[in-house]
Amino acid sequence: MAPEQITLYTAKICPYAQRTEIALAEVGATFKRYEIDLANKPEWYAPKVNPASKVPAIAYGGPDVAPEDASPDSIKLAESLILVEFIADLYPSSNILPADPVLRAKARFFIEIVSSKFTSNWMKFASGNPEVTHTTLLNGVDAIQDILPDGAKYAIGDQYSIADIAFTPFWARFMLVLQKGIGSYKDEERKNFLKAIEDPKFTKFNGYVQRLLERQSFKSTFHEDIVEAVFRRRFGVPK
Amino acid sequence: MAPEQITLYTAKICPYAQRTEIALAEVGATFKRYEIDLANKPEWYAPKVNPASKVPAIAYGGPDVAPEDASPDSIKLAESLILVEFIADLYPSSNILPADPVLRAKARFFIEIVSSKFTSNWMKFASGNPEVTHTTLLNGVDAIQDILPDGAKYAIGDQYSIADIAFTPFWARFMLVLQKGIGSYKDEERKNFLKAIEDPKFTKFNGYVQRLLERQSFKSTFHEDIVEAVFRRRFGVPK
Repeated sequence: MAPEQITLYTAKICPYAQRTEIALAEVGATFKRYEIDLANKPEWYAPKVNPASKVPAIAYGGPDVAPEDASPDSIKLAESLILVEFIADLYPSSNILPADPVLRAKARFFIEIVSSKFTSNWMKFASGNPEVTHTTLLNGVDAIQDILPDGAKYAIGDQYSIADIAFTPFWARFMLVLQKGIGSYKDEERKNFLKAIEDPKFTKFNGYVQRLLERQSFKSTFHEDIVEAVFRRRFGVPK
Repeated sequence: MAPEQITLYTAKICPYAQRTEIALAEVGATFKRYEIDLANKPEWYAPKVNPASKVPAIAYGGPDVAPEDASPDSIKLAESLILVEFIADLYPSSNILPADPVLRAKARFFIEIVSSKFTSNWMKFASGNPEVTHTTLLNGVDAIQDILPDGAKYAIGDQYSIADIAFTPFWARFMLVLQKGIGSYKDEERKNFLKAIEDPKFTKFNGYVQRLLERQSFKSTFHEDIVEAVFRRRFGVPK
Protein backbone atom coordinates (compact mmCIF):
# COMPACT_ATOMS: atom_id res chain seq x y z
CA MET A 1 0.00 0.00 0.00
CA ALA A 2 1.73 3.18 -1.19
CA PRO A 3 1.37 6.09 1.21
CA GLU A 4 -1.09 8.79 0.23
CA GLN A 5 -0.32 12.52 0.07
CA ILE A 6 1.29 14.05 3.15
CA THR A 7 1.05 17.74 4.01
CA LEU A 8 3.18 18.75 6.97
CA TYR A 9 2.38 21.85 8.98
CA THR A 10 5.57 22.79 10.75
CA ALA A 11 7.80 25.60 12.01
CA LYS A 12 11.56 25.90 11.71
CA ILE A 13 11.91 27.10 15.28
CA CYS A 14 10.11 24.15 16.88
CA PRO A 15 12.03 21.06 18.07
CA TYR A 16 8.86 18.95 18.13
CA ALA A 17 8.14 19.86 14.51
CA GLN A 18 11.73 19.13 13.51
CA ARG A 19 11.27 15.56 14.70
CA THR A 20 8.72 14.99 11.95
CA GLU A 21 10.91 16.69 9.36
CA ILE A 22 13.86 14.45 10.23
CA ALA A 23 11.62 11.38 10.05
CA LEU A 24 10.26 12.39 6.64
CA ALA A 25 13.81 13.01 5.39
CA GLU A 26 14.98 9.63 6.72
CA VAL A 27 12.24 7.67 4.97
CA GLY A 28 12.58 9.72 1.78
CA ALA A 29 8.93 10.74 1.73
CA THR A 30 7.53 13.23 -0.73
CA PHE A 31 5.45 15.79 1.11
CA LYS A 32 4.20 19.35 1.04
CA ARG A 33 5.80 21.53 3.68
CA TYR A 34 3.87 24.46 5.10
CA GLU A 35 5.54 26.85 7.53
CA ILE A 36 3.24 28.08 10.30
CA ASP A 37 4.21 31.42 11.83
CA LEU A 38 3.78 30.51 15.50
CA ALA A 39 3.67 34.18 16.51
CA ASN A 40 0.86 34.83 14.07
CA LYS A 41 -0.99 31.63 13.25
CA PRO A 42 -3.33 31.66 10.26
CA GLU A 43 -6.98 31.75 11.24
CA TRP A 44 -7.79 28.59 9.31
CA TYR A 45 -5.15 26.49 11.09
CA ALA A 46 -7.05 25.43 14.22
CA PRO A 47 -10.46 24.85 12.60
CA LYS A 48 -9.13 23.14 9.47
CA VAL A 49 -6.03 21.29 10.64
CA ASN A 50 -5.24 21.06 14.36
CA PRO A 51 -7.78 22.10 17.00
CA ALA A 52 -4.92 22.33 19.51
CA SER A 53 -3.37 24.92 17.16
CA LYS A 54 0.12 23.48 17.60
CA VAL A 55 2.76 22.23 15.20
CA PRO A 56 3.58 19.70 13.94
CA ALA A 57 0.44 18.36 12.28
CA ILE A 58 -0.09 16.23 9.20
CA ALA A 59 -2.98 16.15 6.75
CA TYR A 60 -2.86 12.68 5.23
CA GLY A 61 -4.63 11.50 2.10
CA GLY A 62 -7.65 13.18 0.58
CA PRO A 63 -7.55 15.34 -2.55
CA ASP A 64 -4.49 17.21 -3.81
CA VAL A 65 -5.15 20.69 -2.42
CA ALA A 66 -3.09 23.67 -1.30
CA PRO A 67 -2.07 23.41 2.38
CA GLU A 68 -4.10 26.53 3.21
CA ASP A 69 -7.21 24.76 1.87
CA ALA A 70 -6.84 21.55 3.89
CA SER A 71 -9.66 19.26 2.81
CA PRO A 72 -12.16 17.79 5.28
CA ASP A 73 -11.47 14.52 3.43
CA SER A 74 -7.88 14.22 4.60
CA ILE A 75 -7.05 12.70 7.97
CA LYS A 76 -5.59 15.17 10.43
CA LEU A 77 -2.96 13.88 12.83
CA ALA A 78 -0.96 15.65 15.52
CA GLU A 79 1.60 15.21 18.33
CA SER A 80 5.21 14.85 17.26
CA LEU A 81 5.93 11.38 18.64
CA ILE A 82 2.71 10.02 17.16
CA LEU A 83 3.62 11.52 13.80
CA VAL A 84 7.12 10.07 13.92
CA GLU A 85 5.67 6.59 14.60
CA PHE A 86 3.11 7.20 11.86
CA ILE A 87 5.87 7.99 9.36
CA ALA A 88 7.77 4.88 10.51
CA ASP A 89 4.59 2.83 10.03
CA LEU A 90 4.03 4.24 6.53
CA TYR A 91 7.61 3.35 5.51
CA PRO A 92 8.45 0.13 7.37
CA SER A 93 11.36 -0.68 5.05
CA SER A 94 13.11 2.52 6.17
CA ASN A 95 13.70 0.69 9.44
CA ILE A 96 13.61 3.88 11.54
CA LEU A 97 11.47 1.68 13.79
CA PRO A 98 12.81 -1.89 13.46
CA ALA A 99 10.34 -4.77 13.30
CA ASP A 100 11.75 -6.54 16.37
CA PRO A 101 9.40 -5.96 19.35
CA VAL A 102 12.28 -5.69 21.82
CA LEU A 103 14.08 -3.03 19.78
CA ARG A 104 10.81 -1.15 19.39
CA ALA A 105 10.30 -1.19 23.15
CA LYS A 106 13.87 0.00 23.66
CA ALA A 107 13.40 2.87 21.23
CA ARG A 108 10.23 3.94 23.03
CA PHE A 109 11.89 3.63 26.42
CA PHE A 110 14.79 5.79 25.25
CA ILE A 111 12.24 8.42 24.18
CA GLU A 112 10.57 8.17 27.59
CA ILE A 113 13.90 8.89 29.31
CA VAL A 114 14.65 11.78 26.95
CA SER A 115 11.17 13.24 27.60
CA SER A 116 11.23 12.92 31.36
CA LYS A 117 14.88 13.83 31.94
CA PHE A 118 15.77 16.25 29.19
CA THR A 119 13.16 17.82 26.91
CA SER A 120 11.18 19.17 29.83
CA ASN A 121 14.28 20.69 31.44
CA TRP A 122 16.41 22.38 28.83
CA MET A 123 13.89 25.15 28.15
CA LYS A 124 13.44 25.85 31.85
CA PHE A 125 17.21 26.19 32.01
CA ALA A 126 17.29 28.60 29.07
CA SER A 127 14.46 30.60 30.64
CA GLY A 128 16.45 31.00 33.85
CA ASN A 129 14.11 28.88 36.00
CA PRO A 130 16.21 28.54 39.18
CA GLU A 131 14.89 25.03 39.82
CA VAL A 132 16.81 23.71 36.83
CA THR A 133 20.57 23.98 37.17
CA HIS A 134 23.43 22.64 35.05
CA THR A 135 23.38 19.65 37.40
CA THR A 136 19.77 18.86 36.47
CA LEU A 137 20.79 18.68 32.84
CA LEU A 138 23.92 16.69 33.56
CA ASN A 139 21.73 14.20 35.40
CA GLY A 140 19.63 13.98 32.24
CA VAL A 141 22.75 13.35 30.18
CA ASP A 142 23.77 10.68 32.69
CA ALA A 143 20.40 8.93 32.43
CA ILE A 144 20.57 8.96 28.64
CA GLN A 145 24.16 7.71 28.56
CA ASP A 146 23.18 4.93 30.97
CA ILE A 147 20.83 3.37 28.43
CA LEU A 148 23.02 3.94 25.37
CA PRO A 149 24.28 0.57 24.21
CA ASP A 150 28.05 0.18 24.38
CA GLY A 151 29.95 0.23 21.12
CA ALA A 152 26.92 1.16 19.03
CA LYS A 153 26.38 4.24 16.90
CA TYR A 154 22.87 5.15 17.97
CA ALA A 155 20.28 4.86 20.74
CA ILE A 156 19.22 1.27 20.10
CA GLY A 157 22.15 -0.02 18.05
CA ASP A 158 23.81 0.83 14.76
CA GLN A 159 20.47 1.56 13.13
CA TYR A 160 19.37 5.22 13.34
CA SER A 161 15.82 5.20 14.74
CA ILE A 162 12.89 7.19 16.10
CA ALA A 163 14.73 7.29 19.43
CA ASP A 164 17.51 9.36 17.89
CA ILE A 165 15.01 11.46 15.98
CA ALA A 166 13.15 12.34 19.17
CA PHE A 167 16.28 13.58 20.94
CA THR A 168 18.31 15.38 18.27
CA PRO A 169 16.31 18.61 17.83
CA PHE A 170 16.33 19.24 21.57
CA TRP A 171 20.01 18.54 22.05
CA ALA A 172 20.86 20.78 19.08
CA ARG A 173 18.88 23.68 20.50
CA PHE A 174 20.39 23.25 23.95
CA MET A 175 23.92 23.26 22.50
CA LEU A 176 23.12 26.34 20.44
CA VAL A 177 21.90 28.15 23.54
CA LEU A 178 25.02 27.21 25.51
CA GLN A 179 27.56 27.83 22.80
CA LYS A 180 26.13 31.19 21.78
CA GLY A 181 25.42 32.28 25.34
CA ILE A 182 21.67 32.71 24.87
CA GLY A 183 19.34 32.46 27.87
CA SER A 184 18.61 34.07 31.22
CA TYR A 185 20.55 31.60 33.35
CA LYS A 186 23.63 32.62 35.30
CA ASP A 187 26.59 32.51 32.93
CA GLU A 188 28.44 30.40 35.49
CA GLU A 189 25.82 27.68 35.01
CA ARG A 190 26.50 27.63 31.30
CA LYS A 191 30.28 27.40 31.81
CA ASN A 192 29.85 24.70 34.43
CA PHE A 193 27.81 22.56 32.09
CA LEU A 194 30.20 22.98 29.16
CA LYS A 195 33.13 22.10 31.39
CA ALA A 196 31.44 19.13 33.05
CA ILE A 197 30.32 17.56 29.79
CA GLU A 198 33.97 17.40 28.67
CA ASP A 199 34.69 14.92 31.46
CA PRO A 200 35.94 11.58 30.08
CA LYS A 201 33.03 9.84 31.81
CA PHE A 202 30.77 11.33 29.12
CA THR A 203 32.83 10.01 26.21
CA LYS A 204 30.12 7.58 25.11
CA PHE A 205 27.46 10.30 25.21
CA ASN A 206 29.63 12.84 23.40
CA GLY A 207 30.39 10.42 20.60
CA TYR A 208 26.70 9.70 20.30
CA VAL A 209 25.49 13.30 20.08
CA GLN A 210 28.26 14.14 17.63
CA ARG A 211 26.89 11.44 15.32
CA LEU A 212 23.38 12.83 15.80
CA LEU A 213 24.41 16.33 14.74
CA GLU A 214 26.30 15.00 11.72
CA ARG A 215 23.27 13.15 10.36
CA GLN A 216 22.21 14.63 7.03
CA SER A 217 18.47 14.43 7.88
CA PHE A 218 19.16 16.62 10.90
CA LYS A 219 21.41 19.12 9.14
CA SER A 220 19.01 19.63 6.24
CA THR A 221 16.13 20.42 8.64
CA PHE A 222 17.93 22.60 11.20
CA HIS A 223 17.77 26.31 10.51
CA GLU A 224 20.35 27.59 12.93
CA ASP A 225 20.09 31.29 12.05
CA ILE A 226 16.35 31.34 12.58
CA VAL A 227 16.50 29.38 15.82
CA GLU A 228 19.25 31.64 17.13
CA ALA A 229 17.38 34.85 16.29
CA VAL A 230 14.12 33.68 17.88
CA PHE A 231 15.86 32.33 20.98
CA ARG A 232 17.74 35.61 21.48
CA ARG A 233 14.42 37.41 21.61
CA ARG A 234 12.74 34.76 23.73
CA PHE A 235 15.37 33.82 26.29
CA GLY A 236 17.50 36.97 26.65
CA VAL A 237 21.13 36.87 27.80
CA PRO A 238 22.95 35.39 30.83
CA LYS A 239 23.20 37.31 34.04
CA MET B 1 8.88 -15.99 15.67
CA ALA B 2 7.12 -17.32 18.76
CA PRO B 3 7.34 -15.02 21.76
CA GLU B 4 9.76 -16.04 24.49
CA GLN B 5 8.91 -16.33 28.18
CA ILE B 6 7.19 -13.35 29.79
CA THR B 7 7.35 -12.59 33.50
CA LEU B 8 5.12 -9.72 34.57
CA TYR B 9 5.81 -7.79 37.76
CA THR B 10 2.57 -6.11 38.67
CA ALA B 11 0.24 -5.00 41.48
CA LYS B 12 -3.52 -5.39 41.68
CA ILE B 13 -3.97 -1.86 42.98
CA CYS B 14 -2.14 -0.13 40.13
CA PRO B 15 -4.02 1.11 37.04
CA TYR B 16 -0.80 1.31 35.01
CA ALA B 17 -0.03 -2.32 35.81
CA GLN B 18 -3.58 -3.38 34.96
CA ARG B 19 -3.07 -2.05 31.44
CA THR B 20 -0.44 -4.72 30.86
CA GLU B 21 -2.61 -7.42 32.42
CA ILE B 22 -5.52 -6.55 30.14
CA ALA B 23 -3.22 -6.57 27.11
CA LEU B 24 -1.80 -9.99 28.05
CA ALA B 25 -5.34 -11.33 28.54
CA GLU B 26 -6.46 -9.92 25.19
CA VAL B 27 -3.64 -11.54 23.24
CA GLY B 28 -3.96 -14.80 25.15
CA ALA B 29 -0.33 -14.80 26.27
CA THR B 30 1.06 -17.31 28.72
CA PHE B 31 3.06 -15.52 31.39
CA LYS B 32 4.23 -15.68 34.97
CA ARG B 33 2.52 -13.14 37.18
CA TYR B 34 4.37 -11.77 40.20
CA GLU B 35 2.58 -9.46 42.64
CA ILE B 36 4.80 -6.68 44.00
CA ASP B 37 3.73 -5.29 47.36
CA LEU B 38 4.08 -1.58 46.58
CA ALA B 39 4.09 -0.68 50.28
CA ASN B 40 6.94 -3.07 50.91
CA LYS B 41 8.87 -3.76 47.73
CA PRO B 42 11.28 -6.69 47.71
CA GLU B 43 14.91 -5.64 47.91
CA TRP B 44 15.82 -7.46 44.72
CA TYR B 45 13.21 -5.68 42.62
CA ALA B 46 15.05 -2.46 41.70
CA PRO B 47 18.50 -3.99 41.14
CA LYS B 48 17.27 -7.10 39.31
CA VAL B 49 14.19 -5.93 37.43
CA ASN B 50 13.32 -2.24 37.29
CA PRO B 51 15.79 0.45 38.47
CA ALA B 52 12.86 2.87 38.72
CA SER B 53 11.30 0.42 41.20
CA LYS B 54 7.83 0.82 39.69
CA VAL B 55 5.28 -1.59 38.32
CA PRO B 56 4.55 -2.79 35.74
CA ALA B 57 7.75 -4.34 34.42
CA ILE B 58 8.40 -7.34 32.20
CA ALA B 59 11.34 -9.72 32.10
CA TYR B 60 11.34 -11.13 28.58
CA GLY B 61 13.21 -14.18 27.34
CA GLY B 62 16.22 -15.69 29.04
CA PRO B 63 16.16 -18.88 31.10
CA ASP B 64 13.10 -20.27 32.86
CA VAL B 65 13.62 -18.96 36.40
CA ALA B 66 11.48 -17.98 39.36
CA PRO B 67 10.38 -14.32 39.19
CA GLU B 68 12.33 -13.56 42.39
CA ASP B 69 15.49 -14.77 40.65
CA ALA B 70 15.16 -12.67 37.50
CA SER B 71 18.04 -13.61 35.24
CA PRO B 72 20.53 -11.03 33.90
CA ASP B 73 19.95 -12.79 30.58
CA SER B 74 16.33 -11.70 30.23
CA ILE B 75 15.46 -8.31 28.77
CA LYS B 76 13.89 -5.95 31.30
CA LEU B 77 11.23 -3.57 30.02
CA ALA B 78 9.13 -0.97 31.83
CA GLU B 79 6.52 1.78 31.42
CA SER B 80 2.95 0.66 30.96
CA LEU B 81 2.27 2.13 27.51
CA ILE B 82 5.55 0.77 26.18
CA LEU B 83 4.69 -2.65 27.55
CA VAL B 84 1.21 -2.57 26.02
CA GLU B 85 2.72 -1.75 22.61
CA PHE B 86 5.33 -4.46 23.18
CA ILE B 87 2.61 -7.03 23.83
CA ALA B 88 0.76 -5.83 20.72
CA ASP B 89 4.00 -6.15 18.72
CA LEU B 90 4.60 -9.68 20.02
CA TYR B 91 1.07 -10.75 19.03
CA PRO B 92 0.26 -8.81 15.86
CA SER B 93 -2.57 -11.15 14.91
CA SER B 94 -4.43 -10.21 18.10
CA ASN B 95 -5.04 -6.87 16.37
CA ILE B 96 -5.08 -4.89 19.62
CA LEU B 97 -2.96 -2.51 17.55
CA PRO B 98 -4.20 -2.77 13.95
CA ALA B 99 -1.66 -2.77 11.11
CA ASP B 100 -3.11 0.32 9.41
CA PRO B 101 -0.83 3.33 10.14
CA VAL B 102 -3.78 5.73 10.41
CA LEU B 103 -5.57 3.56 12.97
CA ARG B 104 -2.34 3.19 14.91
CA ALA B 105 -1.91 6.97 15.01
CA LYS B 106 -5.53 7.35 16.12
CA ALA B 107 -5.06 4.82 18.93
CA ARG B 108 -1.96 6.67 20.12
CA PHE B 109 -3.70 10.03 19.89
CA PHE B 110 -6.61 8.73 21.96
CA ILE B 111 -4.10 7.63 24.60
CA GLU B 112 -2.49 11.08 24.50
CA ILE B 113 -5.88 12.70 25.19
CA VAL B 114 -6.63 10.23 27.99
CA SER B 115 -3.21 10.90 29.54
CA SER B 116 -3.34 14.68 29.35
CA LYS B 117 -7.03 15.14 30.22
CA PHE B 118 -7.90 12.29 32.52
CA THR B 119 -5.28 10.00 34.06
CA SER B 120 -3.38 12.94 35.55
CA ASN B 121 -6.56 14.43 37.06
CA TRP B 122 -8.67 11.71 38.62
CA MET B 123 -6.20 10.98 41.41
CA LYS B 124 -5.83 14.67 42.23
CA PHE B 125 -9.61 14.74 42.50
CA ALA B 126 -9.67 11.73 44.81
CA SER B 127 -6.91 13.28 46.93
CA GLY B 128 -8.98 16.44 47.37
CA ASN B 129 -6.64 18.70 45.38
CA PRO B 130 -8.80 21.85 45.09
CA GLU B 131 -7.43 22.65 41.63
CA VAL B 132 -9.27 19.65 40.19
CA THR B 133 -13.04 19.91 40.38
CA HIS B 134 -15.80 17.78 38.92
CA THR B 135 -15.75 20.22 36.00
CA THR B 136 -12.10 19.40 35.27
CA LEU B 137 -13.04 15.75 34.96
CA LEU B 138 -16.15 16.47 32.92
CA ASN B 139 -13.94 18.44 30.53
CA GLY B 140 -11.78 15.34 30.27
CA VAL B 141 -14.84 13.23 29.49
CA ASP B 142 -15.85 15.80 26.88
CA ALA B 143 -12.44 15.68 25.21
CA ILE B 144 -12.53 11.89 25.11
CA GLN B 145 -16.08 11.76 23.78
CA ASP B 146 -15.10 14.28 21.09
CA ILE B 147 -12.66 11.85 19.51
CA LEU B 148 -14.79 8.72 19.94
CA PRO B 149 -15.95 7.64 16.49
CA ASP B 150 -19.73 7.76 16.02
CA GLY B 151 -21.54 4.45 15.93
CA ALA B 152 -18.49 2.40 16.86
CA LYS B 153 -17.97 0.19 19.88
CA TYR B 154 -14.50 1.29 20.90
CA ALA B 155 -11.97 4.12 20.76
CA ILE B 156 -10.82 3.64 17.18
CA GLY B 157 -13.68 1.55 15.76
CA ASP B 158 -15.29 -1.79 16.46
CA GLN B 159 -11.93 -3.37 17.21
CA TYR B 160 -10.90 -3.25 20.91
CA SER B 161 -7.38 -1.78 21.00
CA ILE B 162 -4.53 -0.43 23.09
CA ALA B 163 -6.44 2.87 23.26
CA ASP B 164 -9.24 1.18 25.22
CA ILE B 165 -6.74 -0.74 27.31
CA ALA B 166 -4.97 2.48 28.32
CA PHE B 167 -8.16 4.13 29.56
CA THR B 168 -10.17 1.37 31.22
CA PRO B 169 -8.23 0.85 34.49
CA PHE B 170 -8.35 4.57 35.24
CA TRP B 171 -12.04 4.98 34.48
CA ALA B 172 -12.87 1.93 36.60
CA ARG B 173 -10.97 3.30 39.60
CA PHE B 174 -12.54 6.72 39.23
CA MET B 175 -16.03 5.19 39.13
CA LEU B 176 -15.27 3.05 42.15
CA VAL B 177 -14.15 6.13 44.08
CA LEU B 178 -17.30 8.06 43.15
CA GLN B 179 -19.78 5.27 43.62
CA LYS B 180 -18.40 4.17 46.96
CA GLY B 181 -17.80 7.71 48.20
CA ILE B 182 -14.07 7.30 48.69
CA GLY B 183 -11.78 10.36 48.59
CA SER B 184 -11.12 13.68 50.30
CA TYR B 185 -13.07 15.84 47.86
CA LYS B 186 -16.21 17.69 48.87
CA ASP B 187 -19.12 15.28 48.63
CA GLU B 188 -20.98 17.85 46.56
CA GLU B 189 -18.29 17.53 43.89
CA ARG B 190 -18.92 13.81 43.73
CA LYS B 191 -22.68 14.24 43.41
CA ASN B 192 -22.25 16.96 40.81
CA PHE B 193 -20.12 14.72 38.65
CA LEU B 194 -22.44 11.74 38.90
CA LYS B 195 -25.42 13.91 38.03
CA ALA B 196 -23.70 15.73 35.15
CA ILE B 197 -22.47 12.54 33.52
CA GLU B 198 -26.10 11.34 33.24
CA ASP B 199 -26.83 14.20 30.83
CA PRO B 200 -27.96 12.91 27.42
CA LYS B 201 -25.06 14.75 25.82
CA PHE B 202 -22.78 12.07 27.26
CA THR B 203 -24.75 9.15 25.78
CA LYS B 204 -21.95 8.20 23.40
CA PHE B 205 -19.36 8.27 26.18
CA ASN B 206 -21.55 6.34 28.61
CA GLY B 207 -22.19 3.60 26.09
CA TYR B 208 -18.47 3.41 25.43
CA VAL B 209 -17.35 3.09 29.05
CA GLN B 210 -20.07 0.54 29.74
CA ARG B 211 -18.58 -1.65 27.01
CA LEU B 212 -15.12 -1.14 28.48
CA LEU B 213 -16.21 -2.33 31.92
CA GLU B 214 -18.01 -5.36 30.47
CA ARG B 215 -14.91 -6.58 28.66
CA GLN B 216 -13.78 -9.94 30.02
CA SER B 217 -10.09 -9.01 29.95
CA PHE B 218 -10.87 -6.06 32.23
CA LYS B 219 -13.14 -7.97 34.60
CA SER B 220 -10.69 -10.81 35.07
CA THR B 221 -7.88 -8.39 36.00
CA PHE B 222 -9.79 -5.94 38.23
CA HIS B 223 -9.71 -6.74 41.92
CA GLU B 224 -12.35 -4.42 43.23
CA ASP B 225 -12.15 -5.43 46.90
CA ILE B 226 -8.42 -4.81 47.03
CA VAL B 227 -8.61 -1.52 45.19
CA GLU B 228 -11.44 -0.34 47.44
CA ALA B 229 -9.60 -1.25 50.65
CA VAL B 230 -6.36 0.45 49.61
CA PHE B 231 -8.16 3.55 48.32
CA ARG B 232 -10.11 3.90 51.57
CA ARG B 233 -6.83 4.05 53.45
CA ARG B 234 -5.14 6.30 50.91
CA PHE B 235 -7.81 8.83 50.00
CA GLY B 236 -10.02 9.03 53.11
CA VAL B 237 -13.65 10.12 52.93
CA PRO B 238 -15.49 13.15 51.52
CA LYS B 239 -15.82 16.32 53.54
